[in-house]
Amino acid sequence: MRIITVGREFGSGGREFGKRLADALGIPCYDKEIISEVAKLKGISTEHVEHIAQSDISRIYAGTIGRTFSTPIYYNSMAFEVMASQQEVIKSLAEGGDCVIVGRQADIILKDMNPLNIFVYADKASKLRRCMERASEGETEKEILKQMQNVDKSRARNRRLMCDGEWGKREQYHLCINTSGIEIKALVPALAEYAKAWFCENKQVL
Amino acid sequence: MRIITVGREFGSGGREFGKRLADALGIPCYDKEIISEVAKLKGISTEHVEHIAQSDISRIYAGTIGRTFSTPIYYNSMAFEVMASQQEVIKSLAEGGDCVIVGRQADIILKDMNPLNIFVYADKASKLRRCMERASEGETEKEILKQMQNVDKSRARNRRLMCDGEWGKREQYHLCINTSGIEIKALVPALAEYAKAWFCENKQVL
Repeated sequence: MRIITVGREFGSGGREFGKRLADALGIPCYDKEIISEVAKLKGISTEHVEHIAQSDISRIYAGTIGRTFSTPIYYNSMAFEVMASQQEVIKSLAEGGDCVIVGRQADIILKDMNPLNIFVYADKASKLRRCMERASEGETEKEILKQMQNVDKSRARNRRLMCDGEWGKREQYHLCINTSGIEIKALVPALAEYAKAWFCENKQVL
Repeated sequence: MRIITVGREFGSGGREFGKRLADALGIPCYDKEIISEVAKLKGISTEHVEHIAQSDISRIYAGTIGRTFSTPIYYNSMAFEVMASQQEVIKSLAEGGDCVIVGRQADIILKDMNPLNIFVYADKASKLRRCMERASEGETEKEILKQMQNVDKSRARNRRLMCDGEWGKREQYHLCINTSGIEIKALVPALAEYAKAWFCENKQVL
């Protein structure tokens, strides 16, 4: 199986990159689809799943063990069920055939399948610009900057629960792409060729 | 001008990558040529230039200022002359036309020319294997590991004298390529296309 995982800084365009790369390679891209599938399996709303997936699990974990936080136990156990279910959904999608999976520490979850792991990042100005273009009405620059910081912080913390390697550190990935000031679609054809060559070197033909 | 700089961890194959990328793009690659040119200009041996270029300049600098080290003053001033000359040679080569420049913090020296900055890295086992294949007779694994560590440490320290950004941190580069377990030549055609697309996005046609 040829699996490509895309880790990304919030606002760097990782989702767009994953989708375009998958299109260029003629394979599916899984991103929000994972959330919908988990929601269906657990019988809860996609918003609830998304909220848990974006939370800082280490804090929920601390709450479960020490019971010193006010987080309700129901929420804690649901958080773990959701995270477990997410892992199962990711494995099952990957086993279904070649694909691109965006986020959700899929590179760790699918380690045994030897995926091509890509990380997408950008400078703060570019990320802010990209987020502002997609912002809801009334959302301020300050709120977006705060969200950028919080989401990436949670991703880094949640990764630490799953492996020794640090989120976003280049050593963890096969290729790190800086999208600052660049139209992602312009870079995708070359990166699709890169992916093909990489899998060929790893004796898997895409 | 379309300039590509290649920073690299010692043993990761950055030199081979730079040469192959330049060949694929039909432009020159400057690496050891810079050393020869500096040696000619300063009237010293290439070995002497190479030794200075691989030294930890911050220590030489400390020695020059405080005079608390035993480093001879002649050596100190020659070190600075060599580094200055190296910068001039790099600028002059870049101004001469499109090219790839390997190492020597060329991304910082040529910042105003808006180069495409690539960083090449690999895991320790891959770097050691690559170095062992190229080792002189009698060189031990322990010696090579020590050299790997020392050279990269000097590069990181010398960069700190030139800019705020940290050597090898992905934020400093446009693309970071992990060569672990990979034949570099297999990846070069796709990366040549990547470079062309990147320069096109930056309104410079390669």
